[in-house]
Amino acid sequence: MPLMRSWVESANSPDTDFPLNNLPYGVFTRDGAEGRCGVAIGDMILDVTAAEEAEVIYPVRHTTVFDVPHWNAFMELGPDAWAAFRDRLTALLAEGSPDRAAVEPFLVPQAEVQMLMPLAVAEYTDFYAGRHHATNVGTMFRGAENALPPNWLHIPIGYNGRASSVVVSGTDVQRPWGQLKAPDADAPVFAPCKRFDFELEMGAIVGQPSDGMVSVAEADRMIFGYVLLNDWSARDIQAWEYQPLGPFQAKATATTISPWIVTAAALNAFRVDTPERDVQLLPYLRQPGPMLYDIALEVDLAPEGGTATTITRTNYAEMYYSSAQQLAHHTSSGCPMNVGDLLGSGTISGSTKPERGSLLELSWGGKEPLALDGGVTRSFIEDGDTITLRGAAKGDGYRVGFGACSGTVRPAQQKPDWA
Amino acid sequence: MPLMRSWVESANSPDTDFPLNNLPYGVFTRDGAEGRCGVAIGDMILDVTAAEEAEVIYPVRHTTVFDVPHWNAFMELGPDAWAAFRDRLTALLAEGSPDRAAVEPFLVPQAEVQMLMPLAVAEYTDFYAGRHHATNVGTMFRGAENALPPNWLHIPIGYNGRASSVVVSGTDVQRPWGQLKAPDADAPVFAPCKRFDFELEMGAIVGQPSDGMVSVAEADRMIFGYVLLNDWSARDIQAWEYQPLGPFQAKATATTISPWIVTAAALNAFRVDTPERDVQLLPYLRQPGPMLYDIALEVDLAPEGGTATTITRTNYAEMYYSSAQQLAHHTSSGCPMNVGDLLGSGTISGSTKPERGSLLELSWGGKEPLALDGGVTRSFIEDGDTITLRGAAKGDGYRVGFGACSGTVRPAQQKPDWA
Repeated sequence: MPLMRSWVESANSPDTDFPLNNLPYGVFTRDGAEGRCGVAIGDMILDVTAAEEAEVIYPVRHTTVFDVPHWNAFMELGPDAWAAFRDRLTALLAEGSPDRAAVEPFLVPQAEVQMLMPLAVAEYTDFYAGRHHATNVGTMFRGAENALPPNWLHIPIGYNGRASSVVVSGTDVQRPWGQLKAPDADAPVFAPCKRFDFELEMGAIVGQPSDGMVSVAEADRMIFGYVLLNDWSARDIQAWEYQPLGPFQAKATATTISPWIVTAAALNAFRVDTPERDVQLLPYLRQPGPMLYDIALEVDLAPEGGTATTITRTNYAEMYYSSAQQLAHHTSSGCPMNVGDLLGSGTISGSTKPERGSLLELSWGGKEPLALDGGVTRSFIEDGDTITLRGAAKGDGYRVGFGACSGTVRPAQQKPDWA
Repeated sequence: MPLMRSWVESANSPDTDFPLNNLPYGVFTRDGAEGRCGVAIGDMILDVTAAEEAEVIYPVRHTTVFDVPHWNAFMELGPDAWAAFRDRLTALLAEGSPDRAAVEPFLVPQAEVQMLMPLAVAEYTDFYAGRHHATNVGTMFRGAENALPPNWLHIPIGYNGRASSVVVSGTDVQRPWGQLKAPDADAPVFAPCKRFDFELEMGAIVGQPSDGMVSVAEADRMIFGYVLLNDWSARDIQAWEYQPLGPFQAKATATTISPWIVTAAALNAFRVDTPERDVQLLPYLRQPGPMLYDIALEVDLAPEGGTATTITRTNYAEMYYSSAQQLAHHTSSGCPMNVGDLLGSGTISGSTKPERGSLLELSWGGKEPLALDGGVTRSFIEDGDTITLRGAAKGDGYRVGFGACSGTVRPAQQKPDWA
């Protein structure tokens, strides 16, 4: 698919994340007022809350869904409404649109706004579906022969995370406290995390509820869109707490998502298949078509006051399981899924060292500190460091991007007198 | 504390779960109409939604909180309002109250209503804080020498569950499908669970939000009340899926709670300390006072059309960690807790066989089937079985009870054509 041209000139630049082909959904505020729903186009945002009120635009006649500061009400309308609304937006913003004069008053420069959470996260699940990541971590902790757990090639391993900890790009993240136990210590101590890390992931947003088991094909239709996702991880807390019931406080400090939801419709042109299977999946997990996406991803680390170094370049297509497979598996027990559920893909690492999606892997558990531009090194994140994820599917002369997903790590809170 | 007498005669019976000392909070409906907030008193319910509307009762003047079918809005008012409202209810319903004539029209017989979920569950966390349960399960899976994981005596082990799967007593539970792998099989199959089980737990309801770490004392003040909780568990699904990230679909089918929230205030007279510590806890987990409760618990199993057998009798005081300790630990990473969060205590087992809180323990992994009245046996739950939890703190001549927490297991859904 070629670039679709818009009368918003900045949307036709090959460098923008937001051409007419994209039309991602977010929530913004000016001057701290209540959040409004917006659609990115070039360096502008179409204020759809105002446009709906003015009856210039509507997802479904006689329904108001943009009077709330999230996209959940719109998601509830379902796939037919999603498609109709996207068609309408495309027509309104296309080069030569007769509606330009009616729409233009509702454009706001992105430079003048602050982005908020684009959705109300119902529940948050995180998966472990990157084969290179699972192999790297498994090799570090269990040795190369036992790197992949026996179930890994059969089942998209996942665990429930904490929806209350999901924040939007730009939110500072405070280094957590936790129980830490050195391998040679007799007992744990309660102290600030020393091995704080990021995880490069994509997040799938569930846009329709389930009632009972759903097929992979149906799960694919339930996914509204995708965000970039940084699953901040306290490696030392995790090492001590995670047996036998999995990660808990190690993953509860924060998870940062990009402010823009790129819709499944916008990504449709970039579908790719999952990698070749080592063992055949059970029928309920088999995909009827390609359900991963070719999305180039990268991560920057910038020390406080220093320059950013790109420390990872990889691709979402590296995942072993798609979000549709994960969602189908999630419903296999009858677990009810709801509008606004967020599914983290799992850490996305490629097969080579510069493609690894976490510092744990990049520094090999701290044994091989990573050299950054400017002569400093990192094994794990230090206070003041900013981690920025970026991602885009690349078309011919344009990109369908997510904007930045960024967070700065602040020092741990002072020790309370009761701790 | 002695029985407090009410002008509602049935509330003065030694056998009721709902004397004036209790006053638990629930949501009920008649004829399928929208849920209304109610307070149990003897065999009646005070319709507080109607009483608030009629200005007979109010939690805080000029605030309406009972026009919604859950107690979350009331919880948000905070501990001072909780105490004032309870005082007002006590005065209105006490023997000799001058307000009897004003209140009596708002009483509804419990026999005429259906109970609904008493709260909107924000997020659900389940713990593993019963020492006898952890020892039993650990002995079965890892041997008696390694029964307790190394972290268990230092940390209240927990994992995030699925809020969308929490249902109220009386809701049928459908046997789940899942990936099952026999120990001697090469690969898993996708099939209905064969080892479906209950877990006897208490659930603590978080009534105030957190922003950063909280102390155990503060956590105790944040807990609004308690429910009975049955954490339905698919043992065969869990065995195959739970390494390395913990239980997921094995716990996602359903969790049943009692319809009545018994407030922390009502249970205050029954506080007891946690059992003696084997190793001293880190300061952030130490309790400034007794924060467990002496609550007698029992579980009935009734086959379809058969008589019920009480298969377990134990006590909440058996837990090693209190809900306040669990909640304080939950916030240690900075994880934001919210009004309506539900914390499962973990399975409550006593030290002897008839005190075990799950069939996994009672039948020792299926090796010692349990004999029921009527000559039948059970290793795990069969289709048509009803599991009923009951619990009460016992005062002198009265009980502060929870009502029944019950669920019937229905057959698994038919195999879909894509599975």
